Amino acid sequence: MQHLLSMNELDTSDIQQLFSRAREVKSSNNEWEAPHAFAANIFLEPSTRTKNSFYIAEKRLGIDVVDVNGADSSLTKGESLRDTLKTLESIGVQLVVLRQSQQGILDELSQNLSLSIINAGDGMGEHPTQCLLDLFTIAEEFPSFEGLQVTIAGDVKHSRVARSNAHALRMLGADVLFVAPPQWQDPTVSHNYISMDDAVETSDVLMLLRVQCERHEQHVSNENYLSHYGLTADREKRMKEGSIILHPAPVNRGVEIESSLVECDRSRIFNQMSNGVAIRMAIIQTLLKEEI
Amino acid sequence: MQHLLSMNELDTSDIQQLFSRAREVKSSNNEWEAPHAFAANIFLEPSTRTKNSFYIAEKRLGIDVVDVNGADSSLTKGESLRDTLKTLESIGVQLVVLRQSQQGILDELSQNLSLSIINAGDGMGEHPTQCLLDLFTIAEEFPSFEGLQVTIAGDVKHSRVARSNAHALRMLGADVLFVAPPQWQDPTVSHNYISMDDAVETSDVLMLLRVQCERHEQHVSNENYLSHYGLTADREKRMKEGSIILHPAPVNRGVEIESSLVECDRSRIFNQMSNGVAIRMAIIQTLLKEEI
Amino acid sequence: MQHLLSMNELDTSDIQQLFSRAREVKSSNNEWEAPHAFAANIFLEPSTRTKNSFYIAEKRLGIDVVDVNGADSSLTKGESLRDTLKTLESIGVQLVVLRQSQQGILDELSQNLSLSIINAGDGMGEHPTQCLLDLFTIAEEFPSFEGLQVTIAGDVKHSRVARSNAHALRMLGADVLFVAPPQWQDPTVSHNYISMDDAVETSDVLMLLRVQCERHEQHVSNENYLSHYGLTADREKRMKEGSIILHPAPVNRGVEIESSLVECDRSRIFNQMSNGVAIRMAIIQTLLKEEI
Repeated sequence: MQHLLSMNELDTSDIQQLFSRAREVKSSNNEWEAPHAFAANIFLEPSTRTKNSFYIAEKRLGIDVVDVNGADSSLTKGESLRDTLKTLESIGVQLVVLRQSQQGILDELSQNLSLSIINAGDGMGEHPTQCLLDLFTIAEEFPSFEGLQVTIAGDVKHSRVARSNAHALRMLGADVLFVAPPQWQDPTVSHNYISMDDAVETSDVLMLLRVQCERHEQHVSNENYLSHYGLTADREKRMKEGSIILHPAPVNRGVEIESSLVECDRSRIFNQMSNGVAIRMAIIQTLLKEEI
Repeated sequence: MQHLLSMNELDTSDIQQLFSRAREVKSSNNEWEAPHAFAANIFLEPSTRTKNSFYIAEKRLGIDVVDVNGADSSLTKGESLRDTLKTLESIGVQLVVLRQSQQGILDELSQNLSLSIINAGDGMGEHPTQCLLDLFTIAEEFPSFEGLQVTIAGDVKHSRVARSNAHALRMLGADVLFVAPPQWQDPTVSHNYISMDDAVETSDVLMLLRVQCERHEQHVSNENYLSHYGLTADREKRMKEGSIILHPAPVNRGVEIESSLVECDRSRIFNQMSNGVAIRMAIIQTLLKEEI
Repeated sequence: MQHLLSMNELDTSDIQQLFSRAREVKSSNNEWEAPHAFAANIFLEPSTRTKNSFYIAEKRLGIDVVDVNGADSSLTKGESLRDTLKTLESIGVQLVVLRQSQQGILDELSQNLSLSIINAGDGMGEHPTQCLLDLFTIAEEFPSFEGLQVTIAGDVKHSRVARSNAHALRMLGADVLFVAPPQWQDPTVSHNYISMDDAVETSDVLMLLRVQCERHEQHVSNENYLSHYGLTADREKRMKEGSIILHPAPVNRGVEIESSLVECDRSRIFNQMSNGVAIRMAIIQTLLKEEI
């Protein structure tokens, strides 16, 4: 495998192999190092979290990082993304981590390049490393995905996480249900929409999506969202024994989840971040060594 | 000691121990290296000098640096500083160097974190590494602080340097006097205000503060400031034998000091910068090894 | 040699020595490393390509890089460039790569510093590493510069590349001709202006200049420029056997050159980028080891 553009490229065995390597990374300091390798992290939309997570993954693998941001780059001279990639390849970059807003352009962009591309978010398309770190965090808690109930709650329609997570979870054997306000439901993702009150009682994993306040005007106020579709302290008490809470972060405290629950016992929100580094190290190793 | 938030946390013996380590750093290439450590330098207010000084200190200790700036970070998504710190901790960051504008929020922010925080300026509050590098530069020139006359000249009222330097200098045994226009005097810092003409003749150390042109409208013109409160070539000639000039930089040439004096024999302005790297290396080592 | 500010500082033998080292760099992984060295790349005008090329050259030599940009630096506090350089020197920086807009200020700026400066573009002045990588790319293709016809096409008047390339090429023995719209011809550079149709048939090297759309209003439309002064597919077919195409990039596809030709057999545009890293490594080694 040269690039990681979509979860669709990975089958169950690929995913298990990545998990196995991520577990090694977490348990050991005996890390593989890429000699004199360079990566470029191109984030044309803001994201501290994902960018820093990749940065740390790269540096821990001995990879030097070229920082290319939209503001100071030749992209302001009207240079096309394709020419930027060819340029980076020419000066010795082997790995590009790319976040940009146009869905579906990566297949063409990635043709005839010797460097590897990891999709770190393409608009409302995919964000496969986020999906993998969510799955890996679940895999750390449960012996198997078979029969696990995972409920994804939030703006299903506009979320790049919802669709690819649902697909991968089903492939691994989980039952996937959804909670969403009517205007954010999407029948092409699923018809299984339930209430938040039902979800907390039946789910093994409650996966909250971020309300993208900056992306579209909201149809519900923050308070209304929390009381109808969010995780309140009261609902948390009714959650199934052994169940866990996930959120891709950054959290809107008091919107998707009551602030006091962010660091509660069931929360795996900060574990997801730690796992993000491990899973990204696993992916980068796999791409640079072309082992899948 | 886990964090360095304020000079008040350090007693005389802590300061001497830091100086001793900074001297070692300056005299030797045999530097301690932190294996696979990460730091994040968060400067929400601009500062090339301090940011680069920390960066070089970190890299010389083998620490990789995650760059987080206000503009491209998730702080633009309304993420709280607290969540940013928790996130950085989760992805493997052990040290945060933080400059931000709100005075007095660091004590609460730094609770229940495993990473270390160094305050690199909190509005008009403190900037302890600047204070320590000033003290260290004095300690290199004089056998003792006992009986040393140090005069701090400038905008005493709005300076985060003046108050903490005065406190530390007095603790170490120095006599501290001040020069300031009436509107920039502050009785809570001191009642010992003298004229610049007296200061140059009696001071062992003349510590000029930067006129913060960008922070408040000026009540005196630049020319008037220099002639009444600044260091002119004429006044420099009347300075006490062996006395030295400090300035935290960047210098407003022709305002606090005549341009030709910036690189004169008495000036220790560029020594302060070199010492800044050494003292920051000493502090970082001390925090990461928890030796104080 | 301490600094590289202008091509005028290099004679034929210096250039050959740099080429020889760049060839070594390209053929070998046995690279010289600068122990605990720091560089600062100051780009006060945007350029991903050149900045990243220097960054990779520096990192491959084991040099850590301090990033100073105009927006977040103390330059916004009115600090002079001279003070910035003195500051960087004080905190341990040995090499500054500088792009800024004022032509002719570097000779004075570089006085009395112990660090080395590489001019990475001074307004419409010089950009010597671009010139050297162009020459090196030619030297890889032809046994000698003697009698080679090199045609430089584009905005000769406002190009910092045209003048210094023409000078160096003539010094090395090449015949240099020009193609330019009347308003972009400059008699102080040359009187030898020919048509693009003649140029393609007689040139060994066709060096296209970038149309600086962002720098001045255009007097010709993009389509007119291509058909009169650019390289069309039709003209490429009439090019001399063995001849090559150069462009400093970023390319305005469809303006200086038809888009399909950017990656054609004659194009050395991406080789220029690879060579940029090698030649910059050669220059940095030479300056830090003071071998010329």
